[in-house]
Amino acid sequence: MTNERELDRRAIDTIRFLAVDAVQKAGSGHPGMPLDAAPMAYVLWSRFLKHDPADPRWIDRDRFVLSAGHGSALLYALLHLTGYEEMTLEQLERFRQWGSLTPGHPESHLTGCVEASTGPLGQGIGNALGMAIAEAHLAARYNRPGHTIFDHRTYVIASDGDMMEGVQAEAASLAGHLALGKLIVLYDSNRVTLSGTTSITFTEDVAARYQAYGWHVQTVDDGNDVDALSRAIRAARDATSQPSLICVRTVLGFGAPNKAGSFEAHGNPLGPDEVKRTKEHLGWPEEPPFFVPREVLVHLRAALERGKTAREGWSRRFADYREAFPELAAEIERRFRGALPAGWDEGLPQLPADAKGMATRKASETILQSLAHRVPELVGGSGDLDPSTFTWLKQDGDFEPPQRFDASAQGTVGGGWSYAGRNIHFGVREHAMGAAVNGLAYHGGVIPFGATFLVFSDYMRASIRLSAIARLHTIWVFTHDSIAVGEDGPTHQPVEQLLALRAIPGLVVLRPADANETRCAWQVALARTEGPTALALTRQHVPTLDRTVYAPAEGLRRGAYVLNPELADPQMILIGTGSEVSLVVAAERVLRERGVRARLVSMPSWELFAAESAAYRESVLPASVRARLAVEAGRAIGWERWVGSSGDVLSVDRFGASAKGDVVMTQYGLTADHVVARALAVLAR
Amino acid sequence: MTNERELDRRAIDTIRFLAVDAVQKAGSGHPGMPLDAAPMAYVLWSRFLKHDPADPRWIDRDRFVLSAGHGSALLYALLHLTGYEEMTLEQLERFRQWGSLTPGHPESHLTGCVEASTGPLGQGIGNALGMAIAEAHLAARYNRPGHTIFDHRTYVIASDGDMMEGVQAEAASLAGHLALGKLIVLYDSNRVTLSGTTSITFTEDVAARYQAYGWHVQTVDDGNDVDALSRAIRAARDATSQPSLICVRTVLGFGAPNKAGSFEAHGNPLGPDEVKRTKEHLGWPEEPPFFVPREVLVHLRAALERGKTAREGWSRRFADYREAFPELAAEIERRFRGALPAGWDEGLPQLPADAKGMATRKASETILQSLAHRVPELVGGSGDLDPSTFTWLKQDGDFEPPQRFDASAQGTVGGGWSYAGRNIHFGVREHAMGAAVNGLAYHGGVIPFGATFLVFSDYMRASIRLSAIARLHTIWVFTHDSIAVGEDGPTHQPVEQLLALRAIPGLVVLRPADANETRCAWQVALARTEGPTALALTRQHVPTLDRTVYAPAEGLRRGAYVLNPELADPQMILIGTGSEVSLVVAAERVLRERGVRARLVSMPSWELFAAESAAYRESVLPASVRARLAVEAGRAIGWERWVGSSGDVLSVDRFGASAKGDVVMTQYGLTADHVVARALAVLAR
Repeated sequence: MTNERELDRRAIDTIRFLAVDAVQKAGSGHPGMPLDAAPMAYVLWSRFLKHDPADPRWIDRDRFVLSAGHGSALLYALLHLTGYEEMTLEQLERFRQWGSLTPGHPESHLTGCVEASTGPLGQGIGNALGMAIAEAHLAARYNRPGHTIFDHRTYVIASDGDMMEGVQAEAASLAGHLALGKLIVLYDSNRVTLSGTTSITFTEDVAARYQAYGWHVQTVDDGNDVDALSRAIRAARDATSQPSLICVRTVLGFGAPNKAGSFEAHGNPLGPDEVKRTKEHLGWPEEPPFFVPREVLVHLRAALERGKTAREGWSRRFADYREAFPELAAEIERRFRGALPAGWDEGLPQLPADAKGMATRKASETILQSLAHRVPELVGGSGDLDPSTFTWLKQDGDFEPPQRFDASAQGTVGGGWSYAGRNIHFGVREHAMGAAVNGLAYHGGVIPFGATFLVFSDYMRASIRLSAIARLHTIWVFTHDSIAVGEDGPTHQPVEQLLALRAIPGLVVLRPADANETRCAWQVALARTEGPTALALTRQHVPTLDRTVYAPAEGLRRGAYVLNPELADPQMILIGTGSEVSLVVAAERVLRERGVRARLVSMPSWELFAAESAAYRESVLPASVRARLAVEAGRAIGWERWVGSSGDVLSVDRFGASAKGDVVMTQYGLTADHVVARALAVLAR
Repeated sequence: MTNERELDRRAIDTIRFLAVDAVQKAGSGHPGMPLDAAPMAYVLWSRFLKHDPADPRWIDRDRFVLSAGHGSALLYALLHLTGYEEMTLEQLERFRQWGSLTPGHPESHLTGCVEASTGPLGQGIGNALGMAIAEAHLAARYNRPGHTIFDHRTYVIASDGDMMEGVQAEAASLAGHLALGKLIVLYDSNRVTLSGTTSITFTEDVAARYQAYGWHVQTVDDGNDVDALSRAIRAARDATSQPSLICVRTVLGFGAPNKAGSFEAHGNPLGPDEVKRTKEHLGWPEEPPFFVPREVLVHLRAALERGKTAREGWSRRFADYREAFPELAAEIERRFRGALPAGWDEGLPQLPADAKGMATRKASETILQSLAHRVPELVGGSGDLDPSTFTWLKQDGDFEPPQRFDASAQGTVGGGWSYAGRNIHFGVREHAMGAAVNGLAYHGGVIPFGATFLVFSDYMRASIRLSAIARLHTIWVFTHDSIAVGEDGPTHQPVEQLLALRAIPGLVVLRPADANETRCAWQVALARTEGPTALALTRQHVPTLDRTVYAPAEGLRRGAYVLNPELADPQMILIGTGSEVSLVVAAERVLRERGVRARLVSMPSWELFAAESAAYRESVLPASVRARLAVEAGRAIGWERWVGSSGDVLSVDRFGASAKGDVVMTQYGLTADHVVARALAVLAR
């Protein structure tokens, strides 16, 4: 026993000092959190976490999310010590340096064995919510009596800062509602943040709050008490019908004689003197840095053996499963490969030409129902807006904990309530929706979407950004995409959101012009596995273009395309996106009557068009045609690139107004007549 | 008694049907919430709310925030019935129409008697937090024994949707910590949202959660029980050391026979038949619409008399106060007029030329300390980042509830803990900070600022947008403004945030180039009362330009200015912002040696420059000089406007990386050498 305890202690201190030395060598970073959280991380990783360092992508592994991403050195130390091949000691020595796999905050696209890109506080808890949803969903879909294929947990280490963030609060409330028993959060409660102790701003009772959400809550009074931590994690695992919070009381920068418990231990290296004293204090050799005692390495590398055993057991189970349910097994493998089903987009609805047309959100609904049949991995929901975003999958049930079933509930719910449901009711929690959708994508096996009004993309912007940084296959569906929203007024009318989304590197923004472009937009979004896609859809009707007259909607895939390619020798170019394409189309008819030859370009995506070859771009926007007018019910900024110095933009550069949508559009000059007038003015320049 | 009850009932139904008729006539809107919340609103407004409809701007009025802004018709009905002059019955009849004062969601800049622009859920609770902070602060600063000048409450009506939003959770946690006893939230718990009942997504125990935050919590089981509502509000007022939540159980669309309790009553007119049946059901005459019984009008217009009495009492008290404390009285009046103190910006620090220079966040700290002396209404804080944003006012104490004083606390705290403190510790709650800063501005008497890292502007974007819609005098301080942040990596390095902020109409974004431009930036931000201003400041050192060589930093006020106006006949123009100005300055020296005449333009603000005359713009960027290069460590989008089709932009169009800041800058091509190379390439085109 004494030996075992001593080994625990030495292993914990090894983790601590790998992190401290990494921070010290880098000359920047956060030593305090690894010093205090090493014991809980050690207990979790050495006694509970189901993982195989030799196969970081094993689908039934437990997920571990370091929501307190600033403690990244702790994570890298664990990854190294348990045997992840890419996480060499040299990588730890290159902590926070150019080109290393050990950046300041964990980056999953860079470091394969990192589950999630965290750092912006609160996000990790939302990611973990999504991972736990994915696990529960896949288990409900694929497990069969005697065949348990999906059965893993999602663990989080979170900080005081995480616990203050709104995205965390939203995620925790939803996790409690969803009764996700396999979600376990270790709350490293050191009560110190960047600028001082939490007593200056954060004195709520976190445990009571989580109880109010319906979580199973425990407290461990001494963050160094390995047995207590072990008992608490075990009890959390046993509480299978509720997510679990374990509040662990710790001391930031534990062991640092002069800085422990102070904000000075939070975000800067301890300094050589304090590192020395801390090592002395904890009985650790001052030299060499990055010291790993052999017995500790042997002890922690046992993870490889345990992981192998666990994974091989699972592989045998999966082989049995494949025998019993070959189609399901193939589907699971396909889903986790990220490959869409064969023929998934053949024969999708073609919407007929129609002058009145339909809202693109409505066209989206039609396409989505059709896709839902063909692509079972498509799951998602809205921030309490299904009846408006039209994103509810009608045949696919609602993701709800069966025990909450309440026959009196109404609304959009139908088609079954269980974890097998593919419709997730996120509630009025846009930010947690964003983080959870990211978590679903991190988990794999699903293609997740999240929907709300375009203006509320602002509420979840931090998560959208992270989906782009982490290159996740997420789909953001934003309806009510302009001032044409109407009576709800400026707080509900997006003006700058299209530009703000286009500003995010790696995010493809698609604003389809009509029903058929909407179909193509969904095809792009489903097929684009290398990063997130956002759809901007109208609330109001837009004409469905007659594609026997205009070029096929498939042009959307190239970002911009000529609608009337037969027109020879154009005098000018009219460019539109989304609902404004119908305005330029109408204007072109008038101009034609007046003898003006105007090329029509639908430009649903700047990003896709910019990624095309220069030759294609020139074929759409010939440099020789300098009279250009772009029309979009959003800000003009950035359109200069496409219209050039001689061009003009009919745009919306102030906030909207409350009135009927068509009145607002007219008042703001978004009419075919005004397009004609502006086009003639451009031509006359 | 019976008569009184009958009058209550009729008054409540008057409110209900004014709202229902307004929605019905508009053909859009939210009838359900006014139907259920009319009793609590009536009790509050007729028995408790201290206000004078004849003087909507009386500074010691109670504030009322309809956080559930979609229930705007309820608010307009109350404003009309209690006698606010601008809120005529005709305005109610023009609900949600072009040019009316009754837009779909309340807009304070449009409708003078509306306290806050609400609608995006959760924001109102954050606004109310800010208002309550303002009241507590002004009371602590100005009240004197026997002279109570500030003593008013902030009331909120909030919905289930509000209670799900993260910004609400953050605000409530902070309000509890701050022990703001004059903040009272009525939670209209109808358990129905847009897409169904809350049972599908929101089953937490809200009362217990608020208790965990340290609030005083009560429940009223029947939202129609006028006496119970009255008792609860009274008890909430008596709980002076805690903010209060009153959970009121209501039935959405109360009285509508077929739609009550259903999501169908939420966001659409009831329809003529259901309106008729609802009136029948509640014993209300079907015709005329917008019916106001005479006795109800008399009863509710008593607010005018009560308001007059209250305000006159206050005016007498203020006259006494003026006699006793003439300077303080004058200061209060000045502050609420929005006028800065005479000579407020004379003799602000001029920073000496310095090749090594200083970070603009550090220059900002110097200026801010100086301004804090001169402008007592400047209050604010950061999202737990004072030691990094350098926004702590060193002489001005911390806004903390005296009863929480804890001598062991440390960190940045000093200079006194009380409501008189001007430093607000928002915690890691960026979104609530945004909403609360807006609330401080709505309240008046203070000029509020909120600070965080530029990348985390994403977390509070919805509130920044609202500050622009409502044209609030708020100041947003964003430090760590580029990839030069360094080791923290891409999650902490802004790339697209400058553009995203510039996208918001009405927000002026300033990115000062050096210490002296930073001074001017603060001057602009303080003086610009008509809307919000955002400062983008560096983490890293930038040279302090030698203004005997280069033009004065005051050029910042015009958005862009020529740094080397003596240069005749420029061949090209180099444009920089913020830290990149030092790059173009260095590059120009090299180019000069090579015989290239390059004009240098510092362009700290697109918005201010765009607002200048065409003649001024031409004087800075002459159309004849088409070889232009803009340099900014952010996205290129939008720079085309300033560099033109022949120009180029040295920008950052992908996410950053974790490494030392100068390494990242070098790797991304942000060096003087690279500027020279790109400049020569532009020139050679």
